[in-house]
Amino acid sequence: MAHGGGGELTRQLLAERIIPRLSNELLNPLMDSAVFDVEPGRLCMTTDGFVVDPLEFPGGDIGRLAVCGTVNDLAVMAADPKVLSLALVLEEGLEIELLDRVIGSIAEAARQAGVVIGTGDTKVVEGRGSGGGMTITTAGVGRLKDGMRLDPGRIVAGDVIIVTGNIAEHGLAVMSARDGLAFETKLLSDVAPLNGLVNRICESGADIKFMRDPTRSGVAGVMADLVEDVGLSIELEEDALPVSAIARHTAELLGLDVLTVANEGKIVVVVSQADADKVVAACRADELGRDGAIIGRFTDAQPGLVELITTAGGRRLVQRPYGEDLPRIC
Amino acid sequence: MAHGGGGELTRQLLAERIIPRLSNELLNPLMDSAVFDVEPGRLCMTTDGFVVDPLEFPGGDIGRLAVCGTVNDLAVMAADPKVLSLALVLEEGLEIELLDRVIGSIAEAARQAGVVIGTGDTKVVEGRGSGGGMTITTAGVGRLKDGMRLDPGRIVAGDVIIVTGNIAEHGLAVMSARDGLAFETKLLSDVAPLNGLVNRICESGADIKFMRDPTRSGVAGVMADLVEDVGLSIELEEDALPVSAIARHTAELLGLDVLTVANEGKIVVVVSQADADKVVAACRADELGRDGAIIGRFTDAQPGLVELITTAGGRRLVQRPYGEDLPRIC
Repeated sequence: MAHGGGGELTRQLLAERIIPRLSNELLNPLMDSAVFDVEPGRLCMTTDGFVVDPLEFPGGDIGRLAVCGTVNDLAVMAADPKVLSLALVLEEGLEIELLDRVIGSIAEAARQAGVVIGTGDTKVVEGRGSGGGMTITTAGVGRLKDGMRLDPGRIVAGDVIIVTGNIAEHGLAVMSARDGLAFETKLLSDVAPLNGLVNRICESGADIKFMRDPTRSGVAGVMADLVEDVGLSIELEEDALPVSAIARHTAELLGLDVLTVANEGKIVVVVSQADADKVVAACRADELGRDGAIIGRFTDAQPGLVELITTAGGRRLVQRPYGEDLPRIC
Repeated sequence: MAHGGGGELTRQLLAERIIPRLSNELLNPLMDSAVFDVEPGRLCMTTDGFVVDPLEFPGGDIGRLAVCGTVNDLAVMAADPKVLSLALVLEEGLEIELLDRVIGSIAEAARQAGVVIGTGDTKVVEGRGSGGGMTITTAGVGRLKDGMRLDPGRIVAGDVIIVTGNIAEHGLAVMSARDGLAFETKLLSDVAPLNGLVNRICESGADIKFMRDPTRSGVAGVMADLVEDVGLSIELEEDALPVSAIARHTAELLGLDVLTVANEGKIVVVVSQADADKVVAACRADELGRDGAIIGRFTDAQPGLVELITTAGGRRLVQRPYGEDLPRIC
């Protein structure tokens, strides 16, 4: 607890364990704030709190998740992520080696995404249950790309829904690592910074109407938001959903619908039918989008509804998960 | 827990309890991010996590604290706070009425400071101990004022230290409300947005070399940072410290040094001797700075040390609190 009191021990924790690993020209231990220049234009700001359990899971950890989550929220707004803030709430009893790994992971993800951790804060609190946990809250600022017209209001019947790769892998990987549920799997979380992939999509020449990363609530949650917002219906095709065999198998084992499971390295994109191939080609040119595919389209048949045309040829309603399929997944 | 799962219940919680109270042109429930224009120039970004216990205390609550803390961190960088992000981590069992009060308090503090809550995130986790708590992380962005030259490197021997009002009130008020320590007091936390007061100080004509809000670790923490950073020593005068009678009495009762107790509505300012009166006059013209006073000066007598000249005429060393005087004070 003493490490979080704001006194000499806090200063040591920051000076020895955190600042050196994240070192950059903006993060100055004496100053509370990051200072940076911006070109005139529109800025975008976003924030996310991360409470994932366990803190480390196949394919990532809470640190990588926190950086990628905020980078991706900016990227899908067609903003170039620039500066991130990092606020840690550490629980008493957290292993210092685990903290070191998480900080290393934050530094690595930030490098990969080309962003700097410009400012931060650390607090220590008493443990929760067995203790030793942590939550991370990141916020990020980026400059909007010029000439983009993201606006779900421009979506019309016939427009096409693309997802940039295999779905459900983050949620399933975290579940597989959970106490009491742990089972052997080769499934890895897809957690990755997507600003590079978004750049390719934006430069593909397609007129992008909407982008979103389908995290909590999965693809189903984004679809539900969209039909509610634009007053159209959506038809998804089960056969077209990119899902790895191992993810499909794991979801069946857990009784979960891959459409409602969280992703941390995928984007849902909406464009006109005419532009769809450009986006798919742009995805497939990027390692992180190599399994990108068209998964469905907007119709005006049943405004407000999302339907899945199943492999068997039937139709089933897709809904936002009501309560809590997967607590503390991100 | 279901309210935090990202599904329909999360949406309800946000749509009914949170979004309407914070409503502004930037906070759009479908979009994850705030979008805003900036004039060309230098931007400043900061973040803070708040883990105060209890959540409500005399003079404020965690919501007011979270807004003011981030507004003030920007203000002391001579930045005009513009957009804040708000990330809530709610513990299972949190009373919905308490959440309502905190959200109302956030809205009120934002109005007072003239900032908007542009983007947010809400997560729900299992309880800690008795449960029902919450942590809030805010980040903020503002534009640097033109023509300011804040730089502790410009501080020289003879420069003067001013504090904008009575110290130690936040920490003492929170302590007074704590389980097991609760005692009757009329002491209120000083938590307030200081961007208006900073504007007056910046417009006073004084050449401001340094500003900082003395939160965790109090005035002593800021002094310790300064002597370490600039290689000079500091002499504070006990008689000159603005402390209310009730705060002095409470601190004595608790065995605490008012210099190490947190403030959330005060600023430490460093200027040359010649400019000191301008700053004090600017403070006193503002309700939030009415008790502003010169409390000490830099010397080159004993580089690295901070000394207090006591009322009795003695000298005592002032140090950064080592560990944990006041856990979860902000």
